[in-house]
Amino acid sequence: MSCFWSPVVHTLSPYVPGEQPKQDGIVKLNTNENPYPPSPRVLTAIASAAERLRLYPDPHATRLREAIATYHDVAPEQVFVGNGSDEVLAHTFQALLKHETPLLFPDVTYSFYPVYCGLYGIAYEEVPLDAAMSIEAADYRRPSSAILLCNPNAPTGIALPREAIAALLAENPDRLVVVDEAYVDFGAESAVPLVARHDNLLVIQTFSKSRSLAGLRVGFAIGQRPLIEALERVKDSFNSYPVDCLAIEGAVAAIEDEAWFIETRARIIASRGVLARDLTQLGFEVLPSLANFVFARHRSRSGADLAAALRQRGVLVRHFKKSRIEDFLRITVGTEEQCRRLIEVLRGLI
Amino acid sequence: MSCFWSPVVHTLSPYVPGEQPKQDGIVKLNTNENPYPPSPRVLTAIASAAERLRLYPDPHATRLREAIATYHDVAPEQVFVGNGSDEVLAHTFQALLKHETPLLFPDVTYSFYPVYCGLYGIAYEEVPLDAAMSIEAADYRRPSSAILLCNPNAPTGIALPREAIAALLAENPDRLVVVDEAYVDFGAESAVPLVARHDNLLVIQTFSKSRSLAGLRVGFAIGQRPLIEALERVKDSFNSYPVDCLAIEGAVAAIEDEAWFIETRARIIASRGVLARDLTQLGFEVLPSLANFVFARHRSRSGADLAAALRQRGVLVRHFKKSRIEDFLRITVGTEEQCRRLIEVLRGLI
Repeated sequence: MSCFWSPVVHTLSPYVPGEQPKQDGIVKLNTNENPYPPSPRVLTAIASAAERLRLYPDPHATRLREAIATYHDVAPEQVFVGNGSDEVLAHTFQALLKHETPLLFPDVTYSFYPVYCGLYGIAYEEVPLDAAMSIEAADYRRPSSAILLCNPNAPTGIALPREAIAALLAENPDRLVVVDEAYVDFGAESAVPLVARHDNLLVIQTFSKSRSLAGLRVGFAIGQRPLIEALERVKDSFNSYPVDCLAIEGAVAAIEDEAWFIETRARIIASRGVLARDLTQLGFEVLPSLANFVFARHRSRSGADLAAALRQRGVLVRHFKKSRIEDFLRITVGTEEQCRRLIEVLRGLI
Repeated sequence: MSCFWSPVVHTLSPYVPGEQPKQDGIVKLNTNENPYPPSPRVLTAIASAAERLRLYPDPHATRLREAIATYHDVAPEQVFVGNGSDEVLAHTFQALLKHETPLLFPDVTYSFYPVYCGLYGIAYEEVPLDAAMSIEAADYRRPSSAILLCNPNAPTGIALPREAIAALLAENPDRLVVVDEAYVDFGAESAVPLVARHDNLLVIQTFSKSRSLAGLRVGFAIGQRPLIEALERVKDSFNSYPVDCLAIEGAVAAIEDEAWFIETRARIIASRGVLARDLTQLGFEVLPSLANFVFARHRSRSGADLAAALRQRGVLVRHFKKSRIEDFLRITVGTEEQCRRLIEVLRGLI
C-alpha cells in the first residue's frame, strides 16, 4: 500500500500462474505445456533473426500475421498478434468488453478472466456450468454485452461443438462472442470458419500449447476488421512492438511446420486416452477432455491432499482452491514416460 | 468504428512509431537504434535458452531482475521488468499516475506520454520547455500528483543533472517523480543512486538503445518496494509472463558484458560529436545532446522538406509535425560511415 498507487491498484486480485520450479528432475504437469519441443525449424529461424536484434521489430508483425492468415484462410487484416494470448485477452477486455451491460463467462473457467475485469473495471456475471461441468449455451440467454467462452473450457477440458457457437452468434448479432481457443488444437472444433459470416465473433489462440512455444509468448486473435481495429488501437496506445523479432520469426517457422504439429499433437492425444483410462482404473472420475490436460477427481481422496502428496514425490499438477472444483486435479498430458511416472506415484498413494 | 468497441477505443489517438523499412540499403537514422550489434554473448545465451522454449518463462524473470539489481546496486525486489520500456511505462501510467490532480510532463517530450493518458483516462498538463528547449525545473512547482520527465529528454537530447532531479524529489516528498532514462547511458547522469533516499522516485530504463536490443523488447523500472509492488500488481493482472525466455537470457548476457557496452557507447559518443560539428558547419543549429541522437534545425531549410529529400535519397531521419519542433530533424547517431553518408547527402541538398 502506498499513497502513490493509482486507486485501482488497491483493489486488484492478481492472477497467480502455476509454479515454474527452478530445480531439474520434476515431472511438470501443472501448466499445460507441450511435453515435446517445438519444430527444429523454430530454432533455426530464431538463430537467423538474432542477427537483427539491434533493430526494432516490425510493429505490425506483418510476416507472422500473414503466416497465421494463410494457415487459417483469413485475411492478414483479420489477424491481431500479441505477447502471448494473455496479452491478447487483456487488450480484448479493454477494447471490446467494457460496456454498461455485463459480460458473461462461466463460473468455472480460466481464472484470469475476472482479474482482467478488475483491472479495467468491467461488469461481469458468472454463469454456472451445468451438473456435468459443461457449458450450457441456453444459460447465456440473458441481458449482456458480450459472452466469453474458453473452448475447450479450462480447467475442465470439455468442448462445445462449433454448432453451439454458431447458434450463440446467430441468436443475438449485436452481442459479441469471444472464444478463447488456447486448447483447441487437441481435438476440438475451432470457431475460426465462422468469422467470415459473423461480425460479432472474435477467436483467440496461442502458440504456447500446440506449437510448444510457451516460452516465446505469442498469441493471436482472428475476427472481422472492426474488431481487429479496436485491438490495434489499444495495442498502439500501449506498446508499439509487443512481439519481438525472435518471436515473430520463431512463430512463423512453427506454423509452417505442419508435419511436426500433426505428429506431436497425435502423440499427446494418444497419451491423453491412456492417461484417462489409467486414472479411471485408479478410481478417478475423469471429465471428457479435448485439451492437452485432463481434469479428474478421486472418489475418496481430497484434491488438495493428492496434489501435495504428488508434489512431495516430484510430480507437479495443478489444484485450484475454488468451490465446485476443489476436489479436482488438472493434469497436463505429458510424455508417455511422464504419464507413466504419474500413475506409478498415484498407485503408491491410493 | 463499431458498436462492439468499448467507449474508450473511439477516443484513442494511438502512437505512431518511426518507420521500419523492409528494403535493405537504407541509412536508417530514424528510430534511435544502436548502430552496433549486441554483445556476441547475447546470441550464445539466446541459442542456449531456445532449448527450453516449450516451457513458460519464469513469471518473475528472477535472473534478469538479479542481474539488473547487481549492475545498479539495488535489491532485486526494487526492479520491475517488462516487454520494452513502453510496456513498463504503460503499467506505470495505470499503476501510479492516475490521480485526481494532474500529472505534469513537458510539452515537447516522448509523444507516447499523452497517448497513455488517453488510454487510461489520466488528467495531465504539459509544461512548456524554456526558450532553449530545456526542462526548467522551477516550472513544475504547481499542483500535481506526479511529474514525468524523460532524461535526457526526447527528442531534444538535452539532459538535466542529477542535482535537479534530487531537488524536485526533496521539494515535495508526496509527489511522485518518474524519470524515463531510455537514453541515459550516452552521457547523462542517472537518477538511480537517488532511489535509496527517495520513496517518491521511479526510474525507467531500456535495453533497446545502449544495449543494442531494440528487437528483444526488454525494459525495466527501479524504485522502492511499494512502487515496484504497484507495477507487479498491474502486470500480474495483465500478463503473467511478459518477458520471454530468450529476452530474459539475452538481456542478462548483455548487462554482464560491460566491456562491449563501454566500447560501443564510446564510439557513439565520439560519432555524436563529429555529427554535431558537421551539421553545425552545414548551417544547422544542433541542441546539446547527451543521447544517441541529435535534434537539429537548419537556419533556412524546412524540417519537413529536408526529411522528405533525405528519404528520397535513402536516408531516414525522424520529423515531427508538432508546433515548436516542426523545423527540427531528430537524427540517430549511426556508424561513422552512416553519419558521413548523411552529411554527404545533406551537402548535396543545402
